[in-house]
Amino acid sequence: MTKKRCAVLGATGSVGQRFTLLLEDHPQLELIALGASARSAGKPYKDVVTWKQTSPIPSNSAGIVVRECKAKHFEDLDLDLVFSALDSSVAGQRKRFPRLQLQLRRRRCRLPIVALQAEFGRVSDVEVFTEQALSGAGYPGVSTMDIVDNVIPYISGEEDKLEPEARKILGSLATVNDDDGDLTVKEHDTLNLDATCTRVGVSDGHMVYVSLRFERRPPPSAEQVKAALRNYTSEVQRLGCPSAPRRAIVVFEEADRPQPRLDRDLEGGFAVSVGRIRAGREDGHFDLRFVALSHNTTVGAAGSSILNAEAAIQKGLL
Amino acid sequence: MTKKRCAVLGATGSVGQRFTLLLEDHPQLELIALGASARSAGKPYKDVVTWKQTSPIPSNSAGIVVRECKAKHFEDLDLDLVFSALDSSVAGQRKRFPRLQLQLRRRRCRLPIVALQAEFGRVSDVEVFTEQALSGAGYPGVSTMDIVDNVIPYISGEEDKLEPEARKILGSLATVNDDDGDLTVKEHDTLNLDATCTRVGVSDGHMVYVSLRFERRPPPSAEQVKAALRNYTSEVQRLGCPSAPRRAIVVFEEADRPQPRLDRDLEGGFAVSVGRIRAGREDGHFDLRFVALSHNTTVGAAGSSILNAEAAIQKGLL
Amino acid sequence: MTKKRCAVLGATGSVGQRFTLLLEDHPQLELIALGASARSAGKPYKDVVTWKQTSPIPSNSAGIVVRECKAKHFEDLDLDLVFSALDSSVAGQRKRFPRLQLQLRRRRCRLPIVALQAEFGRVSDVEVFTEQALSGAGYPGVSTMDIVDNVIPYISGEEDKLEPEARKILGSLATVNDDDGDLTVKEHDTLNLDATCTRVGVSDGHMVYVSLRFERRPPPSAEQVKAALRNYTSEVQRLGCPSAPRRAIVVFEEADRPQPRLDRDLEGGFAVSVGRIRAGREDGHFDLRFVALSHNTTVGAAGSSILNAEAAIQKGLL
Amino acid sequence: MTKKRCAVLGATGSVGQRFTLLLEDHPQLELIALGASARSAGKPYKDVVTWKQTSPIPSNSAGIVVRECKAKHFEDLDLDLVFSALDSSVAGQRKRFPRLQLQLRRRRCRLPIVALQAEFGRVSDVEVFTEQALSGAGYPGVSTMDIVDNVIPYISGEEDKLEPEARKILGSLATVNDDDGDLTVKEHDTLNLDATCTRVGVSDGHMVYVSLRFERRPPPSAEQVKAALRNYTSEVQRLGCPSAPRRAIVVFEEADRPQPRLDRDLEGGFAVSVGRIRAGREDGHFDLRFVALSHNTTVGAAGSSILNAEAAIQKGLL
Repeated sequence: MTKKRCAVLGATGSVGQRFTLLLEDHPQLELIALGASARSAGKPYKDVVTWKQTSPIPSNSAGIVVRECKAKHFEDLDLDLVFSALDSSVAGQRKRFPRLQLQLRRRRCRLPIVALQAEFGRVSDVEVFTEQALSGAGYPGVSTMDIVDNVIPYISGEEDKLEPEARKILGSLATVNDDDGDLTVKEHDTLNLDATCTRVGVSDGHMVYVSLRFERRPPPSAEQVKAALRNYTSEVQRLGCPSAPRRAIVVFEEADRPQPRLDRDLEGGFAVSVGRIRAGREDGHFDLRFVALSHNTTVGAAGSSILNAEAAIQKGLL
Repeated sequence: MTKKRCAVLGATGSVGQRFTLLLEDHPQLELIALGASARSAGKPYKDVVTWKQTSPIPSNSAGIVVRECKAKHFEDLDLDLVFSALDSSVAGQRKRFPRLQLQLRRRRCRLPIVALQAEFGRVSDVEVFTEQALSGAGYPGVSTMDIVDNVIPYISGEEDKLEPEARKILGSLATVNDDDGDLTVKEHDTLNLDATCTRVGVSDGHMVYVSLRFERRPPPSAEQVKAALRNYTSEVQRLGCPSAPRRAIVVFEEADRPQPRLDRDLEGGFAVSVGRIRAGREDGHFDLRFVALSHNTTVGAAGSSILNAEAAIQKGLL
Repeated sequence: MTKKRCAVLGATGSVGQRFTLLLEDHPQLELIALGASARSAGKPYKDVVTWKQTSPIPSNSAGIVVRECKAKHFEDLDLDLVFSALDSSVAGQRKRFPRLQLQLRRRRCRLPIVALQAEFGRVSDVEVFTEQALSGAGYPGVSTMDIVDNVIPYISGEEDKLEPEARKILGSLATVNDDDGDLTVKEHDTLNLDATCTRVGVSDGHMVYVSLRFERRPPPSAEQVKAALRNYTSEVQRLGCPSAPRRAIVVFEEADRPQPRLDRDLEGGFAVSVGRIRAGREDGHFDLRFVALSHNTTVGAAGSSILNAEAAIQKGLL
Repeated sequence: MTKKRCAVLGATGSVGQRFTLLLEDHPQLELIALGASARSAGKPYKDVVTWKQTSPIPSNSAGIVVRECKAKHFEDLDLDLVFSALDSSVAGQRKRFPRLQLQLRRRRCRLPIVALQAEFGRVSDVEVFTEQALSGAGYPGVSTMDIVDNVIPYISGEEDKLEPEARKILGSLATVNDDDGDLTVKEHDTLNLDATCTRVGVSDGHMVYVSLRFERRPPPSAEQVKAALRNYTSEVQRLGCPSAPRRAIVVFEEADRPQPRLDRDLEGGFAVSVGRIRAGREDGHFDLRFVALSHNTTVGAAGSSILNAEAAIQKGLL
């Protein structure tokens, strides 16, 4: 099979670096080009990136001459696919790229609730509390003076976007391609989601504590929830995508798991770990509480894009 | 005025050390005796304590010969008051001490909700999420191997005791002395409180994120809540207790405050800091969300005991 | 006595903030003006500073309207004294300020060796290893992505300046005023000093590990060194300066002290703590090893400037 | 080839856990038995170990019933080899085990100096400064209350053992088997080594800063040293041992590398990383300075034992 030719925009940031690692020796995708700011353009990737990953810089990326992130600089390349690791602040230009970013970023982060809806029907109320990792703020991101012996009880812009995102992700499964090539869904527009997002001194791995209420009465028991999560098979698993994890969701019975340092790299960072699954009180507002951990720069960003591309290939869309 | 003669049980732990600091040069209380395990008994305090405070060991405590924590070893001292920093595991023996521990430990931690009830009537539902400091686990407490680049999503025993404690603290204000000398209250027995308690890599200062619902309809606005908290005067302030803070509650308008490292020592560690006060959505389950920070070994433990003792002195009970 | 009128340049950074704290309620100095970048000029200090201290912003500083850091903006103020917390990158302009910065920055950091030379004569060889705090890099300074679960074995520019600085500080005590008003000394120009400087995840407090060789044979014993450090009285103590610490040097006998978190604030951050004092092997190259801890933004920067100003006042130079 | 049957003593600790990971799917070694304290004996490994590794517990170890660490409990197993992860405090009993611990623990930690001696002849003086990781203290090891926002300038017992160890490791290469089956060497008994060992808040990876003097005059240049380290091939590489790293020593040119979090896992944790290689001043005491990073529980402990076993197999000694 011929590999699909792809590029990564925003290649020098944390997520961009993760893309280059995931595209090293990929069986279906070949990294052809890298985009970054004008300042980096014209120089080999290894000379402009401040490499912060624990694996060495991939040899196939190291020598690629970086291009400025404008569509015209990529037109001559006959690309099949463009991945974006651009900040939302500069992401406006991504509309100008063809076949860009098949994914809804953050899609798989919500995966435990997606799995629950698939089994038990719609969720009506969600209260979310997060302890988010430092790499989520990019690089240099958070000043160490702000986080040593400390937590920060607020992440600018983060809470407001969770409800609209969740309404899309938890919408009905029938999806249509709009004119820009993005996926759209029929939104779950009666969902109420409230969030408090905090930053903690952890390098990678977001912890998301969820309290939720189902529409159905009576709600499922904790044991039914655990079984549904354990048995859940995601689309990318069913399609046989090469990067799909063996287990999409790992369920912990130990009271003190998952933990970021110990569990964020399960299934190569492509699993979501769920623990502390417990039923709410009878007649209480919430039916269920749990915590989910996902690796924010792997499954939470670059990894989910790769998976989406693989799914598109398996379905013949690409 | 003659100072009251007092002792501290469990003097070598984190909270015990904090007691000795608060009793250095106290205008109403004089530290006479220190109790610890049999292993430490018979030796000067400075030789048996592993001092972990950022202020030096008080000179009036350093030379006190430690006694084993049994009532018979304290009988000859004509004590007016005994403070306990004993773990709950060995706290059974405290019943044998006269005039011990006037306080309900943790009382003042809940102070923002106490203040809100005083102004707006009863709260019916509370969802609590905590990010708790390491010193709350005592010494040596948490292994550093468990917390470096990590958070722990569970603290054994912590969640279950919050609802019964809150029902006492948020009960009606009429209190009676039971035979053991402890304070009791008419409990708020329709309160529903659910909690998720996590441990984070912060030395001191518990962050408590609260979502709550009032019984009253309509509920107060966020601005009314801020005003009530700012104007709240605690009993120890009204009584003129020497350790009472100038401000019992400090309200922050900045979105990213309070933070443990920056704010835990406000008012000498005797204030509770509150921030991120925001109203819930109309027709939503919760009326209000906020975060409260308190210094867990000062106002949360030793400090509240000292304040209770001072209040008892001011009222002539001691 | 009339207080001297003073200004602080670079007031919004870490060291500048520390200056404002040290000048709150100072018995000899009155803070009149604050200088910062053009971006901050014209606004009240409290609105432009990102306050990162654990004590609240001083009320006498909060409302001062910030001026741009150029000499012409300070000419109308009849200042007696200007303190500089400017980065070395912009410090060129400080030459244009009259009566600026009486101190050699870092002077007191070397104090243990100054004390040893005063008692035992010249030191010929010094090997220095440092574990430096994060606040030394300013704000935002080090990215938390670079320091979580990590150390950095290099600090740009730091090692090269230590030898020339030490040669000045350990030079002969006869000093002369040069034309710019700075102090100069006859340098100790046969001193050899080699350094390795590392950054560690500590908020405040530099640890400096020293191995040194005296010119004198035989060298002093460890006990003689301890006695000399304990008995050392600095000039600011002898002059009775109001901010002078009771003890300039605190000597620890415990093998595992000093430690940054526990000891950096001794004497209000104005002491240097010394521990692990041990003699080298007979016939070995180094005669002595020890570790010294100093609070880098207090005694290491703002505090030493204040002390120098107080010394100048006591001597009638100001 | 038949796999060698082996056991691990001290299997529940950090190093013991690392042994079980390294023995999962090993081509030459088969894990037959696990030893731990009497408290754990008789139960499956997965039920008694507090697993703290980022990879899951190996399935071939999980079900092994743990035996008490006494020789008589292992006699029936026909073992070829026993690995020890016992603390030195209980390691006395290891003498009773046949074929135990072929390695000198810590052997490979010193590898950069071994490589330098092989090329440039004997080293006469070494000054060592370490920043050691938390996992080196075992579990629970260091209390988090002691290391948050802190460093500890002393590790009990660590400094005193470095010189005797180094004298063995840097001794002449001709080795003999003594009666106990341990390797012995002709010691380098004129070596002077002085050390300062500190603990920092890093999970894994010891940083060792070395200043050294060669016997040969003139000493090698920094470039010659880099070339020697880059070209060094260790015995386990020459023998083709399956766990031998591709590169035994990784030399960094970047001024701020190696760093524990980024580089400790190079070559699967079996490489030693060296950086900041620089010549001493002419006529100075030390000829060379550098920093070496090694993963203390992989190459520094379990990994080097495995390599020694593999080397013995390749040489036909086992």
